[in-house]
Amino acid sequence: MPKITISPFAPSGFPKLPPLAGLRLGAMAAGERYRRRADLTLMELAPGSTIAGAFTRSTMPGAPVLWSRRHIARGKARAIVINAGNANVFTGRQGLDDVAATARSVAGAVGCKPEEVMVASTGVIGETLSVDRLLRAMPRLQGKLKAQGWQAAAKAICTTDTYPKGATAQGEIDGQVVRIAGIAKGSGMIAPDMATMLSFLFTDAKLPANILQKLLQWANSQSFNCITVDGDTSTSDTVLLAATGQGPKHGKVTAYEDKRLASFKAALLSVMQDLAKQVVRDGEGASKFITITVSGAASARAARQIAMTIANSPLVKTAIAGEDANWGRIIMAVGRAGEKADRDRLSIRIGGVVIAEAGHPHPEYCEDQVVPHMKGREIDIVVDVGVGRGKATVWTCDLTHGYIAINADYRS
Amino acid sequence: MPKITISPFAPSGFPKLPPLAGLRLGAMAAGERYRRRADLTLMELAPGSTIAGAFTRSTMPGAPVLWSRRHIARGKARAIVINAGNANVFTGRQGLDDVAATARSVAGAVGCKPEEVMVASTGVIGETLSVDRLLRAMPRLQGKLKAQGWQAAAKAICTTDTYPKGATAQGEIDGQVVRIAGIAKGSGMIAPDMATMLSFLFTDAKLPANILQKLLQWANSQSFNCITVDGDTSTSDTVLLAATGQGPKHGKVTAYEDKRLASFKAALLSVMQDLAKQVVRDGEGASKFITITVSGAASARAARQIAMTIANSPLVKTAIAGEDANWGRIIMAVGRAGEKADRDRLSIRIGGVVIAEAGHPHPEYCEDQVVPHMKGREIDIVVDVGVGRGKATVWTCDLTHGYIAINADYRS
Repeated sequence: MPKITISPFAPSGFPKLPPLAGLRLGAMAAGERYRRRADLTLMELAPGSTIAGAFTRSTMPGAPVLWSRRHIARGKARAIVINAGNANVFTGRQGLDDVAATARSVAGAVGCKPEEVMVASTGVIGETLSVDRLLRAMPRLQGKLKAQGWQAAAKAICTTDTYPKGATAQGEIDGQVVRIAGIAKGSGMIAPDMATMLSFLFTDAKLPANILQKLLQWANSQSFNCITVDGDTSTSDTVLLAATGQGPKHGKVTAYEDKRLASFKAALLSVMQDLAKQVVRDGEGASKFITITVSGAASARAARQIAMTIANSPLVKTAIAGEDANWGRIIMAVGRAGEKADRDRLSIRIGGVVIAEAGHPHPEYCEDQVVPHMKGREIDIVVDVGVGRGKATVWTCDLTHGYIAINADYRS
Repeated sequence: MPKITISPFAPSGFPKLPPLAGLRLGAMAAGERYRRRADLTLMELAPGSTIAGAFTRSTMPGAPVLWSRRHIARGKARAIVINAGNANVFTGRQGLDDVAATARSVAGAVGCKPEEVMVASTGVIGETLSVDRLLRAMPRLQGKLKAQGWQAAAKAICTTDTYPKGATAQGEIDGQVVRIAGIAKGSGMIAPDMATMLSFLFTDAKLPANILQKLLQWANSQSFNCITVDGDTSTSDTVLLAATGQGPKHGKVTAYEDKRLASFKAALLSVMQDLAKQVVRDGEGASKFITITVSGAASARAARQIAMTIANSPLVKTAIAGEDANWGRIIMAVGRAGEKADRDRLSIRIGGVVIAEAGHPHPEYCEDQVVPHMKGREIDIVVDVGVGRGKATVWTCDLTHGYIAINADYRS
């Protein structure tokens, strides 16, 4: 393994996440792949908890994705189990058997049906799981569960991440405070197409599974689905949102459109955007955090496509790594995106400075104006393509020697 | 500018290209951007020459692309002029005026109409051309034209290329030997979508423009359109194929389907594939040349899409740079491509070694088997996705520290 430098964006400490009634978390070193670090995580949910999920759209999904996607349809869960280091992907029939054995083992420890256990894995592709090590660890892991297990869980789900990621917010329903908290992992192979690497979100609100699913999809489309590190979509992407219903009593919510959900939605979005940005800030080798907003597109979908094409361009990403406001490469990426754009109305702003407008460089633009911005850690790019009202914002990081160092020598 | 290392794939010398009757080439230092090197190239074609072209599908094409695409429709050309260093892209009305002035100047020197002059440019985006320098150089440049100007031209069209690229082959029509020769440039921003960066191909055969166009498109789809360095499509991609009709006399060719063209087609494809591979071998920072063949796809288009997704994956490219046969990343890329693939029939071979088959790692596979292949300069990846008969081959290079060094500091 290469020496991995801690991301310059790493926060000074893990945020303080509140205990949520009806949720206990724990982690331990099962020794499946890693030595001397926790790699197996268990999350236990109170009876009656509902759950929603979003999964990778890869045509090569891992066995845990196949299991969880199938069983989440019932909207009920009592536990989530995650192992880090081995993704259990492309492991054939054995992989599916291993997931089922893991779920049965958790079900035995927690006291529920195997179908009420969601499974997620992250790590190397194409290696059979040492499932015995996971099964052996389960009774002890169950003994480690506690309401304040957030940080232990956030650490244990990491692979190439350089810091654990957590976020929280609160909203209200019927004047009652409800809490949302969650964790995420991810650093490379980040271009979620439906979901990101792994994220587990919880609330103590009481919400039916079908509404939870809509809330998750809505927030996902504005958070995890708007980030990219390297344009590579994982085979293991999983985002789960569980509601324990054990918080302060509030009236029954029966429709996604219910206006009483407004505050909850805002809180959920804030937690998910916070985690999504943390994943980008921990992007492999990242030295800059880049926000790209595209407006004036034919539709929101077209705007996202253009923004993602800019965000995934190795030439744009390396220019930013070199602190070069090379906006010609942004033009190139817009041109390549395959979506309508009017060259003669196109405008580009970097760090608030108008660089190009109406199809040519702004007459007063001089590179010195953006130098201080380019030297900073947070880069803002705004592009208007001049054909409509579609708008989207995506977040990405730069492409540096650090990315090459991490990935040219990750598995060996 | 960073120190640019010569590609390890650079040939020992420029290939010997034959003079073609009806074609003269020349280059000189016009000082538009570069100092102390030729940056302006002129190619003069005999009266009666026909021409065909393929251009970038970028929605932000450069002014030279707009000019040449418009005038090539008549199928006639007497000259091609190329400047390197400034792409004349996103330069508004001024950019178009500058192209027209350049074409008029060449027309004056050569003795033809401006519409019979094709223009191509490559280099920085968003800067107005110092067109006066080009115009001033034209009379002297005309004096430098000669049949053996191949190497001078191949060098003068380069930007970040580390070696000039040329190729030749001969075919026959009606038993008469006809020659094909051409040059290309390209190193970064290579993911041609219709054409590559720049390539200029010539034959002394006599072929109508409409047949020439079909020949070019056919060969292009199996050469330049099958390469990628970084997945970024240029705003300036231009491939031109001109026929002087000044070689040995052969019978009139009146249809693309004419069987007498078989040998010519094979020769054209060989020249274009040779040049396309040279572009990849000179890919920015390349240390490995990678051939990716996908078979068993739903269609040839689907096979190409899967192969290109593998070829553009930063995780696959960095693994190969690290000489790691990390085939899990190939699975990831197949899964991400969005085309049908059957996990349980998928097979992967690297360097001829069967690594995965029928949805799981091959039982006898051991990493040591591919180590010698991974340490070599030429990497072969063959993937069968098990759903149909579609097949495609693409060529790419690895992603190394060299790419970052070149691109994080190119323009500054």
